[in-house]
Amino acid sequence: MSPIGSLLWRHLRVYQIYGSNTDVGKTIFTSIFCNASSRIWRHETTAYLKPVSTGPEDEADDKCVSIAIPIAVQFHSDLLPGVVIVTYPTTVKSHIKAVLIHSHIRRFANGVARRTLYQYSQPVSPHIAAKGNVISDQCILKSVHEYSSERAAAGPGWLFIETAGGTHSPGPSGTPQADLYAALRCPVVLVGDWKLGGISSTVSAFECLRIRGYDVEGIVLFEDEKYGNSDYLKEYFKEHYGIPVMALPRPPPLDNGSSKTKDYELMLEYYALASHTKEVEETLVYLDDRYKSRIKVLESMAAGAHQRIWYPFTQQKLLQPKDIVPIDSASGNHFQTLVPECSENPTGKPLLQPSFDGSASWWTQGLGHGNISLTLAAAYAASRYGHVMFAGMIHKPALDLAASMLEIAQNPRLSRVFFSDNGSTGMEVAVKMALRAARTRYGWSPNTKMDVLGLKDSYHGDTIGTMDCAEPNTYNEKVEWYEGKGVWLDYPQVQCVAGEWQIQAPSEFGTDCNHRFPHLADIFNLGQRISRGDHKVYEKYILSTLRRHLDKGHKFGALILEPVVLGAGGMVLVDPLFQKTLVDVVRHRPSIFDLDNSQTLPSDDRDWSGLPIVFDEVFTGLYRLGRPMAATFLDSNPDISVHAKLMTGGLVPLCVTLASECIFDAFASEEKSDALLHGHSYTAHPVGCQVAIESLKQLQAMDKSGDWNWAKSNGWLQAKNDTYSELSQTNTQVWSIWPLDLVQWISLQAEGVAGVWAMGSVLAIHLRASDGSGYTSTAAEGLRKRLLAGTGTGNAATGSWNVHSRVLGNVLYIMGSQRMMEQEVEEISKLLRTGLEECL
Amino acid sequence: MSPIGSLLWRHLRVYQIYGSNTDVGKTIFTSIFCNASSRIWRHETTAYLKPVSTGPEDEADDKCVSIAIPIAVQFHSDLLPGVVIVTYPTTVKSHIKAVLIHSHIRRFANGVARRTLYQYSQPVSPHIAAKGNVISDQCILKSVHEYSSERAAAGPGWLFIETAGGTHSPGPSGTPQADLYAALRCPVVLVGDWKLGGISSTVSAFECLRIRGYDVEGIVLFEDEKYGNSDYLKEYFKEHYGIPVMALPRPPPLDNGSSKTKDYELMLEYYALASHTKEVEETLVYLDDRYKSRIKVLESMAAGAHQRIWYPFTQQKLLQPKDIVPIDSASGNHFQTLVPECSENPTGKPLLQPSFDGSASWWTQGLGHGNISLTLAAAYAASRYGHVMFAGMIHKPALDLAASMLEIAQNPRLSRVFFSDNGSTGMEVAVKMALRAARTRYGWSPNTKMDVLGLKDSYHGDTIGTMDCAEPNTYNEKVEWYEGKGVWLDYPQVQCVAGEWQIQAPSEFGTDCNHRFPHLADIFNLGQRISRGDHKVYEKYILSTLRRHLDKGHKFGALILEPVVLGAGGMVLVDPLFQKTLVDVVRHRPSIFDLDNSQTLPSDDRDWSGLPIVFDEVFTGLYRLGRPMAATFLDSNPDISVHAKLMTGGLVPLCVTLASECIFDAFASEEKSDALLHGHSYTAHPVGCQVAIESLKQLQAMDKSGDWNWAKSNGWLQAKNDTYSELSQTNTQVWSIWPLDLVQWISLQAEGVAGVWAMGSVLAIHLRASDGSGYTSTAAEGLRKRLLAGTGTGNAATGSWNVHSRVLGNVLYIMGSQRMMEQEVEEISKLLRTGLEECL
Repeated sequence: MSPIGSLLWRHLRVYQIYGSNTDVGKTIFTSIFCNASSRIWRHETTAYLKPVSTGPEDEADDKCVSIAIPIAVQFHSDLLPGVVIVTYPTTVKSHIKAVLIHSHIRRFANGVARRTLYQYSQPVSPHIAAKGNVISDQCILKSVHEYSSERAAAGPGWLFIETAGGTHSPGPSGTPQADLYAALRCPVVLVGDWKLGGISSTVSAFECLRIRGYDVEGIVLFEDEKYGNSDYLKEYFKEHYGIPVMALPRPPPLDNGSSKTKDYELMLEYYALASHTKEVEETLVYLDDRYKSRIKVLESMAAGAHQRIWYPFTQQKLLQPKDIVPIDSASGNHFQTLVPECSENPTGKPLLQPSFDGSASWWTQGLGHGNISLTLAAAYAASRYGHVMFAGMIHKPALDLAASMLEIAQNPRLSRVFFSDNGSTGMEVAVKMALRAARTRYGWSPNTKMDVLGLKDSYHGDTIGTMDCAEPNTYNEKVEWYEGKGVWLDYPQVQCVAGEWQIQAPSEFGTDCNHRFPHLADIFNLGQRISRGDHKVYEKYILSTLRRHLDKGHKFGALILEPVVLGAGGMVLVDPLFQKTLVDVVRHRPSIFDLDNSQTLPSDDRDWSGLPIVFDEVFTGLYRLGRPMAATFLDSNPDISVHAKLMTGGLVPLCVTLASECIFDAFASEEKSDALLHGHSYTAHPVGCQVAIESLKQLQAMDKSGDWNWAKSNGWLQAKNDTYSELSQTNTQVWSIWPLDLVQWISLQAEGVAGVWAMGSVLAIHLRASDGSGYTSTAAEGLRKRLLAGTGTGNAATGSWNVHSRVLGNVLYIMGSQRMMEQEVEEISKLLRTGLEECL
Repeated sequence: MSPIGSLLWRHLRVYQIYGSNTDVGKTIFTSIFCNASSRIWRHETTAYLKPVSTGPEDEADDKCVSIAIPIAVQFHSDLLPGVVIVTYPTTVKSHIKAVLIHSHIRRFANGVARRTLYQYSQPVSPHIAAKGNVISDQCILKSVHEYSSERAAAGPGWLFIETAGGTHSPGPSGTPQADLYAALRCPVVLVGDWKLGGISSTVSAFECLRIRGYDVEGIVLFEDEKYGNSDYLKEYFKEHYGIPVMALPRPPPLDNGSSKTKDYELMLEYYALASHTKEVEETLVYLDDRYKSRIKVLESMAAGAHQRIWYPFTQQKLLQPKDIVPIDSASGNHFQTLVPECSENPTGKPLLQPSFDGSASWWTQGLGHGNISLTLAAAYAASRYGHVMFAGMIHKPALDLAASMLEIAQNPRLSRVFFSDNGSTGMEVAVKMALRAARTRYGWSPNTKMDVLGLKDSYHGDTIGTMDCAEPNTYNEKVEWYEGKGVWLDYPQVQCVAGEWQIQAPSEFGTDCNHRFPHLADIFNLGQRISRGDHKVYEKYILSTLRRHLDKGHKFGALILEPVVLGAGGMVLVDPLFQKTLVDVVRHRPSIFDLDNSQTLPSDDRDWSGLPIVFDEVFTGLYRLGRPMAATFLDSNPDISVHAKLMTGGLVPLCVTLASECIFDAFASEEKSDALLHGHSYTAHPVGCQVAIESLKQLQAMDKSGDWNWAKSNGWLQAKNDTYSELSQTNTQVWSIWPLDLVQWISLQAEGVAGVWAMGSVLAIHLRASDGSGYTSTAAEGLRKRLLAGTGTGNAATGSWNVHSRVLGNVLYIMGSQRMMEQEVEEISKLLRTGLEECL
C-alpha cells in the first residue's frame, strides 16, 4: 500500500471535529457548520464525513464501504427542503435524541454531501462494535484520503470530518482516534464540554491533540450559566494559545416521545437560528483564514529559508528556493512535503505528498517520526525536571541511561559514561580521554605532539578537534584551522559486485587479499577467516606502515575507528577482518608505541594496551547495522565508545562517550586542573536522557520480539553457514531490511554500478563516476533526482509519493528507520529499480 | 514565604487521587483505600485530605482552615462504629447521593484522620465557588504540606489526598489542579471513567498528568460489562506503561429518598465487601512497594552515579558519594533534593527539600523548571515532526526561530542563521565563518597561520577549536591538543567595592582609568564617557598592543568578545567602554590588519571592516543581563553573534550563530567544497526550535509587560541620570533582580569581599583569596557549603530549604531565573547575608 498524504488541498478546507467527550454536541456543531458554510459559500460545496460510525444509523443510502446496516428512512420535505426523518427501527424511545442528532446532517441535503465509511450496528465504542470485523487503521486512512480527494476534485468547498466519541476513543482496531488520524494532519475544531467537569475534559482533550502535533484552530461548546465553562475556557485558550472559543446556546430540551413533531420544530428553529449567528459566521471565516494561512506559510517557506537560513553542508550559491523542500510535518518514515509548483496544478491535486525519509534524517531516525511514546517521554522529563546542571548532581534519567548504555555495550572494559550533545563533541571528549591516558602512561611531556591512528576516509565530526582526527578531505581541508593530526591507513573494502561479495584491497596490500565470497556472512565469519590465516597479509601491512611512521618520530595517542562502515567518508563497508586485525596489532604489541619499548601487556584485561582504542559508533551503533553494537561485528572491545544519533530515536541531540575505568583513572589526581574539564550547558539534559531510555527500550523490544525476522529471512539467512545458525543469537547475524535479491540485482547493473552493499537499515550504491569519486562527484545526483520525482502524479485519489535521499559524491544511500515494514521496503525497492533502469 | 518541598517521608505513603472526570467514584475509591489500608496496616494510621471542597459538606467538625460552612451532623453508631449520618441542611433530594459519598470517609473514624482545608459552599467548580474568597495556589500548597507534615510526625501510615473534579478542573485561583499540585510530586492513583467515552477521558487524564511529570502508579475504575472500558484500559496501560489497572464492581443503585436506611445499608455492605477484596489489597501492597522503591532509588542514586558517571568539570578523585546531590525533580526555581543522611533522621522529617537552583542550571534556566508551556511546545514539535534533516529542507519552527532571533538582535548587519547544538559548536561555526571571511578578503593563502583577537579570561567552550580561541588557562592548558591561537588583551573591570562602583584597570593602562562612579548606570553611559574622552587611554593601549603583535607578524582573522561579562573565566564585569573602544578601533582602522595596508572602510555599513567581529552572547544574551542583547550595552553591532543557553529556556540544547550577509557571501562559489561544510545530525531539530520560539515569546512578553519593574525599582532606577530616564526604553537600563542595597552591603564586607556586582539575574561575589585567585582557588568554597547547608532543620512543618550554587575559584555567583519573584530574592538575600557573616 502506498504511503498516505496529509489532507491539504488549495480550495477544499478540511477540518476534523473532535469531541472532548461523548455527548458534548459534536454532531450538532458539525451540522451547524455544514449549514452555515453551505449558506455563506453558496457557490461551493460542503461535505460531511463520518469515517466510523456505530449504533443504528440513518446513513443507509450513503455509500458505506462495508458493514452498512440498512435502515428505512423517509424524506420529510414540508419542514425544510431535504430534511430527512428517520424511521427508527427499534422501539427504544430514549434514543430518540441521539437519532435526531444524527439525522440533522441530512437537512443540508441541498448543499451538503455526506458519507459514512464504516458503519457498525452496535451503539458502543468502535473497537467493541468491530469485533470480528476490524478494519485496519491504514485502510481507514486510505478511505478518508480517497473521499477527501473526491471532494477536492469536485471543486472548492468545505469538508467536515466528524470523529466518534472523545479524542482517545478507540477506532475499530483499538488505536485511539487521536493517534489513528494524526498523520492526516487535519486542523481541528474541538467541541468542548459544557457540563460539570467540562473544563477539565476540554483542556485534557486539547492537550492530547496538541502533543500529537494537531493544530486545534477553534473550540466550540454550549453555554451554561451554572458552570460557566465557556467563560473560563475563552480566557484560558486566549491567554495560553490565542485560540478562539465560540459558545452557543444549548439546543432546546426535547419532550421525548410525547410530541415528536414539536421536537422537530424546536430543533429546526434552533438550527436555523444557530447557523445564522454572527459567532458561527465569524468562526467559519476565521477557520477559512487559518486554512489559507497554513498554505501561504508552506508556500513562502522556501523563499524565507533561502533568504535567512545558512544551511549546513550546502553551497548556497548553487541553491535556489525551488531546491528547498518545505515540509509540513512528518510521521512514520515519511515527511509530508509541499508538492512542487502546485500553483499551476489543477484544483483537485493535493498540496502535500509523502516523501520517504531516505536519509533517516541524517541517520538519526529509527523509530518513526511523530512517535508518541518518545513525545511522552520527552514531555514527562521536561515537566519533571526541565534541565538540571550536571556537576555534583544526579537525576534518574541520566543514571538509568548510563546503566542502560553500559549494559547494551556488553563490553567488560566500559564502566564510565560521559555525556555531551552530539557525535562531534562526544568524539572531542573521546580524543581528550585517549590522549591523556596515553601521554601519562608513556610519560610524555605535556607539549608532546601526539597523533591519532585511523583509516583513510574517516569522519568524526565538524568541530576542529574531531576534524583534526581525519586525513585532509573535502570536509576539512579548506577550514582555516584544520590540521590533520594523525596517520591514516589504507583499507580493504567490501562490496557486492556483479552478484558476488568481494573484498577489494588497495594495490599495496598485494593480490592476496582480493577474495570473493558467496555470502556477506562469510566475510563476517572472522573466526573462520583467521583460522585460514586471511589476517596475516593485513597484519604485515599494518605493522610495516606503523613502523615507518614510528621511525619518523610519530607518537600516537589513540586508535580511532568507525567500526564496519565509514559513514560520511563515503558509505564504505570496510573488511571487518582488517579492522579487527588493526585493533589486535595495536593491543598486542604495546611496546612499539613506547619510546622506551618497555611496555608489557597489562595484567587486568580491562586495561588498555598499546593505544587506547576509540570506536566512533555514532552512526554505526544501536541497530543501524542490525546489531546493538557495531563493535560485535569486529569481535573487539574498545576502551572508549561513542554513541549518539539513534540513541535518542530521532528526536533531540544527545551523545555519550563510554570509557573504561583505567581511562577514567588517568584523570584522577589531587588537582582539580587534572580533571577532564569539559562540559556543555545541557550536559545529560533530562529530556534527552528520558527519550534515549525510551528509544533503547523500543529498539531492544523489537530485537527481542523478532520484529526483523521478515527481513532476516529475505535472503540474508540463506547466507548463514554452520557458525551462523541461530536466529536468536543477535551477534551472529548479518542482515539488512533491504532484500538480498535487490542488492544482487543492483550489483548486476554493471554499466553504472561499481558496487553495492546493505546492512541493517542501510543500502549504499556506489555508482561509477567518470568525474572522480570524491564528495564533489555528481554521479549519483541523477538517481537522487529521479527518486525525488517519485511516482509522479500517481493515483489521482491517493496522490503521488517520492523518496528524499542523500548522496555522498558518487554514492547514493538509502537508510530506513528500524520500524520499516516489508511492504514499504518493497515499494521503495520498486521505485529504486525503476530509477536505476532509467538513470544508468 | 519559604519554598515548598515535595511530599516525601519515609514512613508516610502519600498518594494523590485524581479523577479522569467528575462523578467517576473518586471518593468511593478513596474510602475503600482508607478502609482497607487502616485494616491491613492496623498499627499505622490512615488519613484522608481534601484540600479544596465545594458544595454543602459534612466536614464541619474538621478543622477547616477557613471559610468552613457549619453543617449539622449526627453520629449514627448502630450501623458501624464511627459512621456519620449527615443532616443535610437543604432539601435538594437529588443531591443525596453526592452527600452520601462524601460522608463515606467518616465511617472510618476508627482509624482514619480526615481534613478538609478549604471549604466553599456552592456545589460548583472551586474557581467559581471561591469568587471573592480566592486562596492563592501557594497557600494551598503550604497547607497541604503542613497537614502532611503533621501526619508524618504522627507516625507511619498512609495519606490519601483527594482532588476535586477532573485533572484539569480549576482550583480556587483558576489554576488547573494538575498544574497547581505538580510541584508536590505526589504519586497518583487515577480513578478511571467506566462510562461511555470513559476510555478517552481516562487516557486523556493520564496523559495530562504524565506530561506534567506525575508518576501515575495505578488506575482504578468501576466495571461495566457494556462498555468494557476496564478490559481495554488494562491492556492499554500494561502495554504502554506497565501500570496496573484495578476494576471493582459498581456500587449498588440507590433508591434516592424513598428509603434512606436501606440505601445506607446497601452502601455499607458494598464498602465492607470492596475493602476486603484481593484486588484492593494487592493494589495497596503494590502502591506500598512503589513508594518504597522511589525512596530506594533516590537513596541509591549517589552511589550509582559515583560508580558510573564521568562528571564534567569535576576532579572525581575528590568527589565522594555524599557530595553528589540526588534530585527527585525540579519546579520553578527549585530542585527537590534528597535531604542528606536522612536515614538517621526522625520519622517525621521530610526526605526532600527545595534547593534553589543558584546556577540557573549552568546559566540555562530562565523560565522555571517544569514550565508546562515549554513542555507542550516540545511535545507538539516532537509529534508533528520528530527530527527533520536540515539540508535543503525547511520546517516552520526553524524558519520562525530564525526570523525571531534576527528580529530580537536588532542588528542591521545580521541576516543569516546557522544552527548547531551548543555554545561551543556555535562558536566553532563563528570562528570558521570569521577566519574564512578575513582570509579571502585579505587574500592570504589557505595555509596562513591566523590568530584571533580577544580578552584575557575569555571562554568560548570546550571543543578544541573554541579552546584555541582562549589564552592558556586552567580549562585548556592541560588538554593535549590545545594550542592558543590568538592574542588576548588585558582589560579594566568593574566592581562595587566598599559601596562604590569602581573601574579597576591593570597597571599598564596607567592610573588615568581607575575611576569611581556613584552608580553602575554611569559606567554604562558610554556616550557621556566618550564625550569626556574616557576612551582615549583605552584606544592608546589597544593600538599599541595590536601594533606590537602585528609587527611580530601575527595575522588576525577575528575579534571575539563575550560582551560585558566574562563568564566561565571568572564572572568578571568588563568595562563596557573598553569593549566598545576595542570594537571601534578594529572596525575603523581596517588597514592595520592588512599586509598591504590597502583596506579602506567599506561603503556598505553592514559590511565588516578590520576584522569580522564575533560576539559570544551564549551566556550574556537573551535577558541574562537584563536586556535581550548584551551587544546593546556596548552600543556595538557585531558581524557574527552566537546564542544558546537561555534561548531554549532551560530545556534542550540548541544554538544559533547569526551572521551578516557579507560573511555569508565569503563562502559563495561554484564549488561545493568552498561552502561551510559544517553540520550536526540534529541541526535545527524541531523540538529545540519550537521550545526556543516559546521561550523567546515568554521572555519578550515579560519584558514588555513590565514584569521586572519591581526589581528595577529596587535601587537600580535611582541610579539613573538624565540619559537613563525612561523605564520603557529597555536599552537604557542597567538593573538586576538582586537589590542594590544587597550588592552594596556585600561590598562593605571588606575583610572577605574583594568586590561584587549584579546585572540582570546574575550576582557575582569576588572573595579575597589568600591562595591565589584562579579557578583552582577554594576561597568561595566555604560560602558555597554554607548556602548548601541552607536553613537547617527550619520549620518542622514546611521543612528546610537551601541554595545550590556554583563557584569559579574565588568567585561565588548566584544566578536566578528571569521568573524570580521579589519575595524569593528576599529570602535568598537573607540567607546570603547570614552566610557571608558566618563565613568571612
